Amino acid sequence: MIINMMYGASDEQIAHVIAVVEHAGYQPHTIRGTERTIVAAVGSGGNRIALEALQAAPGVEEVVAITHPFKLVSRQVKSEPTVVNVRGVPIGGEEFVVIAGPCSVESREQLLAAARAVKSAGARLLRGGAYKPRTSPYDFQGLGEEALRLLAEARDETGLPIVTEVMSTEDVARISEYADLLQVGARNMQNFALLRALARVDRPILLKRGPSATVKEWLLAAEYLLAGGNPNVILCERGIRTFETDTRNTLDLAAIALAKELSHLPVIADPSHGTGRRSLIPALSSAALAVGADGLMIEVHPCPERALSDGPQSLDPEGFRKLMRNLAMPSRTMKPVSA
Amino acid sequence: MIINMMYGASDEQIAHVIAVVEHAGYQPHTIRGTERTIVAAVGSGGNRIALEALQAAPGVEEVVAITHPFKLVSRQVKSEPTVVNVRGVPIGGEEFVVIAGPCSVESREQLLAAARAVKSAGARLLRGGAYKPRTSPYDFQGLGEEALRLLAEARDETGLPIVTEVMSTEDVARISEYADLLQVGARNMQNFALLRALARVDRPILLKRGPSATVKEWLLAAEYLLAGGNPNVILCERGIRTFETDTRNTLDLAAIALAKELSHLPVIADPSHGTGRRSLIPALSSAALAVGADGLMIEVHPCPERALSDGPQSLDPEGFRKLMRNLAMPSRTMKPVSA
Amino acid sequence: MIINMMYGASDEQIAHVIAVVEHAGYQPHTIRGTERTIVAAVGSGGNRIALEALQAAPGVEEVVAITHPFKLVSRQVKSEPTVVNVRGVPIGGEEFVVIAGPCSVESREQLLAAARAVKSAGARLLRGGAYKPRTSPYDFQGLGEEALRLLAEARDETGLPIVTEVMSTEDVARISEYADLLQVGARNMQNFALLRALARVDRPILLKRGPSATVKEWLLAAEYLLAGGNPNVILCERGIRTFETDTRNTLDLAAIALAKELSHLPVIADPSHGTGRRSLIPALSSAALAVGADGLMIEVHPCPERALSDGPQSLDPEGFRKLMRNLAMPSRTMKPVSA
Amino acid sequence: MIINMMYGASDEQIAHVIAVVEHAGYQPHTIRGTERTIVAAVGSGGNRIALEALQAAPGVEEVVAITHPFKLVSRQVKSEPTVVNVRGVPIGGEEFVVIAGPCSVESREQLLAAARAVKSAGARLLRGGAYKPRTSPYDFQGLGEEALRLLAEARDETGLPIVTEVMSTEDVARISEYADLLQVGARNMQNFALLRALARVDRPILLKRGPSATVKEWLLAAEYLLAGGNPNVILCERGIRTFETDTRNTLDLAAIALAKELSHLPVIADPSHGTGRRSLIPALSSAALAVGADGLMIEVHPCPERALSDGPQSLDPEGFRKLMRNLAMPSRTMKPVSA
Repeated sequence: MIINMMYGASDEQIAHVIAVVEHAGYQPHTIRGTERTIVAAVGSGGNRIALEALQAAPGVEEVVAITHPFKLVSRQVKSEPTVVNVRGVPIGGEEFVVIAGPCSVESREQLLAAARAVKSAGARLLRGGAYKPRTSPYDFQGLGEEALRLLAEARDETGLPIVTEVMSTEDVARISEYADLLQVGARNMQNFALLRALARVDRPILLKRGPSATVKEWLLAAEYLLAGGNPNVILCERGIRTFETDTRNTLDLAAIALAKELSHLPVIADPSHGTGRRSLIPALSSAALAVGADGLMIEVHPCPERALSDGPQSLDPEGFRKLMRNLAMPSRTMKPVSA
Repeated sequence: MIINMMYGASDEQIAHVIAVVEHAGYQPHTIRGTERTIVAAVGSGGNRIALEALQAAPGVEEVVAITHPFKLVSRQVKSEPTVVNVRGVPIGGEEFVVIAGPCSVESREQLLAAARAVKSAGARLLRGGAYKPRTSPYDFQGLGEEALRLLAEARDETGLPIVTEVMSTEDVARISEYADLLQVGARNMQNFALLRALARVDRPILLKRGPSATVKEWLLAAEYLLAGGNPNVILCERGIRTFETDTRNTLDLAAIALAKELSHLPVIADPSHGTGRRSLIPALSSAALAVGADGLMIEVHPCPERALSDGPQSLDPEGFRKLMRNLAMPSRTMKPVSA
Repeated sequence: MIINMMYGASDEQIAHVIAVVEHAGYQPHTIRGTERTIVAAVGSGGNRIALEALQAAPGVEEVVAITHPFKLVSRQVKSEPTVVNVRGVPIGGEEFVVIAGPCSVESREQLLAAARAVKSAGARLLRGGAYKPRTSPYDFQGLGEEALRLLAEARDETGLPIVTEVMSTEDVARISEYADLLQVGARNMQNFALLRALARVDRPILLKRGPSATVKEWLLAAEYLLAGGNPNVILCERGIRTFETDTRNTLDLAAIALAKELSHLPVIADPSHGTGRRSLIPALSSAALAVGADGLMIEVHPCPERALSDGPQSLDPEGFRKLMRNLAMPSRTMKPVSA
Repeated sequence: MIINMMYGASDEQIAHVIAVVEHAGYQPHTIRGTERTIVAAVGSGGNRIALEALQAAPGVEEVVAITHPFKLVSRQVKSEPTVVNVRGVPIGGEEFVVIAGPCSVESREQLLAAARAVKSAGARLLRGGAYKPRTSPYDFQGLGEEALRLLAEARDETGLPIVTEVMSTEDVARISEYADLLQVGARNMQNFALLRALARVDRPILLKRGPSATVKEWLLAAEYLLAGGNPNVILCERGIRTFETDTRNTLDLAAIALAKELSHLPVIADPSHGTGRRSLIPALSSAALAVGADGLMIEVHPCPERALSDGPQSLDPEGFRKLMRNLAMPSRTMKPVSA
């Protein structure tokens, strides 16, 4: 930590800061500049909070942290990439893995049609919402446990492992009975009670980035899971909220590259929520592959126009097949330079 | 709803949209412009989701809603302002109410010192965190039930009703035994499981706006509470996340004026989180009063520099007393125009 | 400057950084922590750019500036507030000054009607656009020099000094002949060629904050003016761009308090552009007064519904009179605490 | 245009709106819903501004435009893609074109070393700043005309056409003598005086997206150029400003796909400014190629650590060569599905 003193801070104020640094278990180094003084607190294992609180001390302008606050998710701690095994499907390894399926499970027919379609096009996992977070209380809230049973049936038929969202600590046990991968939705990224509950579960977790979370906050949310005992975490970038309104969110592909640089965890992209526009999904899927993502999560509905949620951003089976073909065969590449 | 067809949409596509509108229980009105056609769906009580899903139909550019999606929180439904009674203290009425206290309950001494200080300066409610949402799992997470008991003791001594945050459905019953006003934190504004649980509780709710929530999403979160049976909701603006980094958040005072225009619910401001800088809190408190807020929530700590959380944005007792005096006596006003 | 070395940086890399710091004319202080090493560069008058470029050196994680990059606009350099005199009207002193008038000058009748109305209600300066920045090339672009002559006529009649926007270096001389205060629009805040031209003009400047500019960038834009020779600068907060769409911009009142804390320059607010909604303007005007702004700029049109630009956010004369009365007499204040 | 009346608007207010619509040269269609009334204004060639101003009329909630405000840049007007010829190099056609070079021209040696390096690695155009927009007046502002002469020399030697930024209308003529492609910087995207001057120039224009401009505003800025007579416009996405601070900007790749869907103009990406972190540039370059961009603009400096500007985001020659090789040979693709 660097404690940056205000311009004109008194000797007494500087001495006070030094005393707090020592009392907190760190070694103080004082550097008197021409305009201001800084105190560096060196060491580890001290009382970090006492240092941060110095921001409130007289004469202190700012306390700047110079080390990352996360540990277990960091590449510094574990340099080789983590591969998460979801009922036999490895995510984070050689293979680029596509998860697909409807936003919400709406009926047996709808789900099975979707499951067959995404399986035949090359998807490796099936997604489907049973409990849906909806902005309005008057919107469709999901079929609940009935949806879980249908997902299990679709898995039995297609062999695709299933992923579904957990919205509440109360649902963790029930959903864990059915699902192979438990999703934390973007709005719950900092639902710490939920994270603590999922840290104790014997299932891998898909952790979506919150719409206004920085990459570091996202990694710290993952740190809750690892620190609580669950090492099987997959990160999912699904777009952040910006001033741009012609796309539902702004898919932040640099965040994927950055998360993979800072952390060993696998990272996938969700271009369906990330753009909210069906026409843009194939191009952003290819871009996610190119940027180094480990996979995709894509909404596919047998008939998007009749979907009870997210129709405008859902692909139909034919659109999904085209997308998968494009991924396998890029349409334009740079010509190699002869020199 | 207005269904805006694409430039060049075919007659067949338009006919399809009209058929869906009718099937959904609305009356279609078709307007053929020089460049495009629009179909207006008139009526209420139809299947709104079927209309929204038209966004996925061929030839449709956009489906635009022209009515607000919220009902019970709306001024259209109830024009007179709601006054929420918190153990005898009315919020939303004539009086501008200040809630104050420490970010976290840290000890008996700290809490009682804070409670006495804010009471003597004019605060009407005492705040104090028992369960703390923290970005990092390694930060202080609150004293839990012990903090609840201390809050009750502080209430007994000072007579100030108490407000504390509920982070999880599992804690709702326990916290309701102690607290007079239950706070939903900004990161939980769209924790719908929590909102549903709080809708069934016999306590008023303080609902903070999420850092990236629009005013309409905030009102829809309140709608969950009212629709679920709890009419006693107070809204709290605590700053939104923007590109500006010199303040912790951007306190959106226009959102307070707008929320009060659209809704009958009381709205207060939290300039402590809204700015994150102690020096700015008094000015923003005065501004919140002037913009029409019904009250404030302010972090006060007997010794901010030793606070276990939010020290940099906490006032000390003397700072809080000055703030309260400023609120009672504006320092500069316009000179009235003689004409 | 603090040069924060990467975890695992080699001794050679650290030595290289130290050599660059010395070569750039600073004194290096090296602090070896348990996890990383930092090098502090102490001194002033050295080659700051050489230090910043170290961010590209091997083994360097980050270069952190610990002093503000602005000088002449800073409170550290000049602690007493600057009062800018605009043809006899002081801005930044005791009086809270309201500037009002139409978005665009549209005709002689329109401008004179607006000028008389705002004068009688208590405005001290008249605004009116002659050259208009418009998002679309097909929108009304202003009357140009004809508008300047009409503004001068309105000044002659009412005695109100006039303010109008300068969009291009080519127009600086012509507009300076007419206007008493030259406005730099938000989209031109970082039009450095324009700032350099205005630094050499014998007229005060009204510098609007860009819609995505931080407070520090805004102050640095003002620094261009002061460093170039023009000390008469008034800052104007007019809202920043955020994800919220129900207001045209998010009026950042904390930025006003912060700008006044960091700088000695006067700061006013523009709640017309800041909200874009006529109904919110009075409340935000009162809030701007309360937060410590030195004045307001408000759009007033004799008939907003016929305005050629910004009608939805323009007040009519009666609405403006009410706003001015409200400013002079706050509707609700805190009751003073007896203790 | 749709004029959406307020809940409870009176018959008189509705009649007034209808009268204005007719007077403005449009045909009104009135639809009375159960909750509100809307008036659709049909036709083209009427007085659009008069309709927009209705937002200020009594009883009107909102005026919604249902057609895009841009024309000449639209795919509706010209469906085949525009290929811009920059001194023999086509941009927007089959070839993916890379522009590279230093942020600023600093010296003859630096520029020629950079030019040779990027040429040999496969770049097709040379970039280099002569006049630099800098946030602080104390930073290096560019070598001006001397830099232009050096750029011309580098073109003579390497055969690479050159691109450089124009900051002011006053510089347009001089820079046009030297440069093959004139760049409008992000901060000048809405410098309308500059756009109008460049519309009359016989050189293609590279128009960067402003850091807080929507895709539609960006296209409208391009519309200024086309409407003013210059059809040779290349768009450049360089990142938008968001709350994320670990990247300098958020590179919005979906905006590239969207701009190409809405417009026939070529679009390139600038991952150097878009991320501000050297380590992320190769991955984002591949992603831009995959998303459908027509090319890249990349900062390359012979010795980034000694750069006078943008060192941290500049590649050295070896880093650039690797990036070019990666573009030609994607490292991981989806396995094609056998079915």
